[in-house]
Amino acid sequence: MSVNVNPVRGTREFLYQEMLLRDYVQGVILDTYRECGFNRIGTPALESIELLDKSDGGENLNLIFKILKRGQKLDLTAENLRENDLVDMGLRYDLTLPLSRYFANNRSKLREPFKVIQIDKVYRAERPQKGRFREFYQCDIDILGDGSCDAETELIFVTAKALRRLGFEGFTVRVNDRRILTDMIVAAGFPADSVPSVCITFDKLDKVGVDGVRQELLDKGFASGVVERFCAMTCTEGEMLDRAAELCADKSVVENLKTVMERSRALAQGAYRIVYDKSLVRGMGYYTGMVFEIASDKFKGSIAGGGRYDKMVGRLCGDDVPAVGFSIGFERILEILTEAGYRPPHVRARTALLYDREQDDFVAVMECAERLRVQGNEVAVIARGKKMGKQLDALKAEGFDNRMIFGREDAPAPFVER
Amino acid sequence: MSVNVNPVRGTREFLYQEMLLRDYVQGVILDTYRECGFNRIGTPALESIELLDKSDGGENLNLIFKILKRGQKLDLTAENLRENDLVDMGLRYDLTLPLSRYFANNRSKLREPFKVIQIDKVYRAERPQKGRFREFYQCDIDILGDGSCDAETELIFVTAKALRRLGFEGFTVRVNDRRILTDMIVAAGFPADSVPSVCITFDKLDKVGVDGVRQELLDKGFASGVVERFCAMTCTEGEMLDRAAELCADKSVVENLKTVMERSRALAQGAYRIVYDKSLVRGMGYYTGMVFEIASDKFKGSIAGGGRYDKMVGRLCGDDVPAVGFSIGFERILEILTEAGYRPPHVRARTALLYDREQDDFVAVMECAERLRVQGNEVAVIARGKKMGKQLDALKAEGFDNRMIFGREDAPAPFVER
Repeated sequence: MSVNVNPVRGTREFLYQEMLLRDYVQGVILDTYRECGFNRIGTPALESIELLDKSDGGENLNLIFKILKRGQKLDLTAENLRENDLVDMGLRYDLTLPLSRYFANNRSKLREPFKVIQIDKVYRAERPQKGRFREFYQCDIDILGDGSCDAETELIFVTAKALRRLGFEGFTVRVNDRRILTDMIVAAGFPADSVPSVCITFDKLDKVGVDGVRQELLDKGFASGVVERFCAMTCTEGEMLDRAAELCADKSVVENLKTVMERSRALAQGAYRIVYDKSLVRGMGYYTGMVFEIASDKFKGSIAGGGRYDKMVGRLCGDDVPAVGFSIGFERILEILTEAGYRPPHVRARTALLYDREQDDFVAVMECAERLRVQGNEVAVIARGKKMGKQLDALKAEGFDNRMIFGREDAPAPFVER
Repeated sequence: MSVNVNPVRGTREFLYQEMLLRDYVQGVILDTYRECGFNRIGTPALESIELLDKSDGGENLNLIFKILKRGQKLDLTAENLRENDLVDMGLRYDLTLPLSRYFANNRSKLREPFKVIQIDKVYRAERPQKGRFREFYQCDIDILGDGSCDAETELIFVTAKALRRLGFEGFTVRVNDRRILTDMIVAAGFPADSVPSVCITFDKLDKVGVDGVRQELLDKGFASGVVERFCAMTCTEGEMLDRAAELCADKSVVENLKTVMERSRALAQGAYRIVYDKSLVRGMGYYTGMVFEIASDKFKGSIAGGGRYDKMVGRLCGDDVPAVGFSIGFERILEILTEAGYRPPHVRARTALLYDREQDDFVAVMECAERLRVQGNEVAVIARGKKMGKQLDALKAEGFDNRMIFGREDAPAPFVER
């Protein structure tokens, strides 16, 4: 059989050194979240096509892997076949939609506010490119049923804590509220229906600066007076928030943002920065209030992002359920740690126990391995090759801490330089 | 939006108590396997339809969830549309095919024998029924590149060890070799092409006894003399193995089986039984030699199964690679543990820290929670409800070990009976 043995386009397979790191990082994040009283749930990777199509996923709806109907339900002879005649399910494109469905389905069994962990695979039919995959992990915490800004404060603290446990330090948590941005845009004189377009441009402030934003808005055909008024709104954080408080019809919006920032700074104790970022938008269409992300000068792009999405869960529940979530960019974290040569700590010493297939009693070899395991070693039982020197070098390079030759040596010992 | 909020047919979602158990069981298995020097790899859930269709999956090939092509590759206007014109990928139905592809693709980077762990989701479009799901976990160890029966011995020992760590005791490991069974059937006088049919009947020996097997073989139309000769072959293990040794053209088959049994008994030290089961077949078509499974009188069905499949990996590699695997029935294990009311040990005391949303300083509450976490507690920060007595009862019932009311109490304390 001659077939392509590569993993399918846009997906990856992981060697065991990589899996060790992935499992370690996932374990640290999960353990941190559980220590903070969040609870993990599990949902299937498959969702009904009906639910996926009706969801608020924006561009992700075009990226759904759809599952062909099976058996008699699949009719290929019908006229004017449409895609959705052929499919009944799809692979989820994120974990927020399954969470909303889960909450609607299990609400009576859940304590509210529901503080929840999800770490699982999601699927998107993206054009594969560096750092962008068709199958990848998401790593979310969410709080459902808490409209107060205690929820934002806790999510920021707990997410930052998980990142610090993985060695990330000196990062910046950027916060904003969508409603402030909207009010600013409208107050500057932009038409209400141009808010999304202005947001997209303004989101680039970090990269292109005020002049770049001005130029792009002018290129989009907005009146120069409006654009100038908008660009003049860029000033210090304090002035900006005072200005925002004047602009916002709902005074609690700016108050809450200030509260979250003050509390988060107190809890950070200087280990990371909290800044107001007036141009922070975050992509997802379902955000309704505060948005936040974590970034650092040390690496490109953000490593975590989230926000409040008060309307989404309600669409499935019938009544409004306030909700806010924060997602660690698991694959991005892995990339950064891998590039930095990060190695997960060995909990147990890794020992290679070498035996002679012809000479040694295999039961005695296995019993020896067990004794070493009871003493706290991780022991691989390995048949000796013809060139044992070369074999020992390879085992050392692979990451073994110790070796022991059965019958010749009494205890594991470090590899010696030859 | 009115939509069905149940998980799609045949799939499940897990409440956090269930996830705690699932994560614990998976952690114990993974940790045991790693301690024994096996390495975990990761492969995508998606495989090319070409590879899936050409695989040796028997009936599973009819159970593949297929993924619709996307964009211009999907042509619904073509005449005489066939299913495979519409799809380019499918969800894997097991972990053995992805392992074979992985090995073929990465062989140069792998130390052989390659001792590998896989714990991951697989998908089958089965008719849903009790204990049978469309999305479920498999939990496999395999040894690739070792044709000796050291491999079988180690797999049986390590699998039994993982099960014992989960509290399973007194189980039985049944072993057989497909080739002995085949030779017995042929020696009794059945036509060579009826071997699979006789195997299917003989596999029921446990359930229906010798008389049941005799009747079914007669009903299938086999000659009564042949059937009687076959049924007369049922005797004690010792006699049976001697008989098998006479029958088998390849004497090493029975020798190896005896070696694995003797070694496994020595290593078991009486904690579990190893028996020769002349009627053990195991379903998968790709098995070529020894097969084994683990069962117990304490529960129905087997909880682990495996065998040698020396031809399968070679079909993708070009040259033959001996291979043997053992798979724990993860979902079955979970069912048994759940029915027995098994609770994973709390590594940390679970503490509910209650605070007053109106009165208390949330930063001080969070700082208090952190102090308790540093002391080794798992701490959930929970806003006090109006009826605190009822709330405390609910938290105790949920599984919290301790509670502490912020501002009123200085340390976590057990819940008191009211």
